[in-house]
Amino acid sequence: MERLNISDHISRQFNEELENVRGQVLKMGGLVEEQMALAVQALVNGDAELAERVILNDYRINALDVAIDEECTRIVARRQPAATDLRLVMAVIKTITDLERIGDEAKRVARMVVEHLSGSVNDEVRQEMEHMGVLVREMLRGVLDAFARTDVDTAMAVVRADRKVDAKYGAITRQLMTYMAEDPRSIPMTLNILWAARAMERIGDRCQNIAEYIFYLVHGRDIRHTSIEDAELEHAREQARERESGQESE
Amino acid sequence: MERLNISDHISRQFNEELENVRGQVLKMGGLVEEQMALAVQALVNGDAELAERVILNDYRINALDVAIDEECTRIVARRQPAATDLRLVMAVIKTITDLERIGDEAKRVARMVVEHLSGSVNDEVRQEMEHMGVLVREMLRGVLDAFARTDVDTAMAVVRADRKVDAKYGAITRQLMTYMAEDPRSIPMTLNILWAARAMERIGDRCQNIAEYIFYLVHGRDIRHTSIEDAELEHAREQARERESGQESE
Repeated sequence: MERLNISDHISRQFNEELENVRGQVLKMGGLVEEQMALAVQALVNGDAELAERVILNDYRINALDVAIDEECTRIVARRQPAATDLRLVMAVIKTITDLERIGDEAKRVARMVVEHLSGSVNDEVRQEMEHMGVLVREMLRGVLDAFARTDVDTAMAVVRADRKVDAKYGAITRQLMTYMAEDPRSIPMTLNILWAARAMERIGDRCQNIAEYIFYLVHGRDIRHTSIEDAELEHAREQARERESGQESE
Repeated sequence: MERLNISDHISRQFNEELENVRGQVLKMGGLVEEQMALAVQALVNGDAELAERVILNDYRINALDVAIDEECTRIVARRQPAATDLRLVMAVIKTITDLERIGDEAKRVARMVVEHLSGSVNDEVRQEMEHMGVLVREMLRGVLDAFARTDVDTAMAVVRADRKVDAKYGAITRQLMTYMAEDPRSIPMTLNILWAARAMERIGDRCQNIAEYIFYLVHGRDIRHTSIEDAELEHAREQARERESGQESE
């Protein structure tokens, strides 16, 4: 019963806790973005020292992951959130898992630079990898922005952008296969570039996952196994419904 | 207040709901195990028809994933679970994400068989891939068993087994690199085998993730970023503590 009397206080505190969690997720996202950008930079410049730094800094992402996860479980246990609040907590728990694994992919790219990359990458491949890095970084930035503003339109744009990343990955794979065939001695090094390209392609997939959690957060619907076209239709319908109910209440 | 009067009824129903969720997870795990085994079989036998079946059946895993996820959110919202119950729900939410992605990896392997595998795999590679398939399947079975019995010892054995899978993956990679260098015309096909090996290595990683959630479920501690040795020490300490408190209460 006590709870009812202090419910204003509790809900204010609760809102602060949720806002704090959102802030932590964005902080984690910023770190992940930085790690990914540095890993790509280390790869295209063959900079082993920078790659070492990326590897060393991964623990910061992991620490945030564990801390946010614990905070979410604590909030569920103590605040018993419902509806949108609960969906936010669930979306955060999944989002940080993907962010943490994007960090792992960045570390994987960095490790390749440190352990296997003897000699520098040729200019053509360098440009392609740099471009793929830019595309993936745009996806990550976009999805963090969508999360910050709870914006489904931006999230859907991220889902669509994954197609560009997949196409780029396909083009790089074909190019690298030609190199290997032309110069078999280059196979070990070329394979490493291929693994790095694969890691970036996976980062794109994970950004798409996060975009899908944002859709779930806003509309309460799981679209992971739905086509982008169907999801966009549903989003448009939901928006129309909101506009209508907005007009009715005027 | 009504709730207190019917609390027995509620807790019995609640237990049934939790048991039902555990059962659904095991059902999903069984499906995933089957899909993975069939994908490996299709790969080593170059059986495109079987691979098509694996691709078609993936939707069953996805449907279970969505259903279990919704049920977990519903349980959190309505039952407001605490302590171990809450940890179970959280562990389930994460476990099904990894199971669903193991299903995706199986589908990926199957797709390679359908789209790219012209000609059969040579005997040596076939044996290696079959062996890797067996190792990964043992991990998946082990971790589902650990989940069914909430058994940390079995879960820790799964974490250790991942080292064998990683070593096998390394050996296969080296072998395939030699093939590519010796016969550049084999590069496209050999790369596909390499992707399949990579997919299986990732399945091993995901089994390890699930094993770590079981540790969390039992001991309430997140060991994803802890070494296996430290986690085993902690498990031993927790068991000793339980035995002591068991003797005290006798």
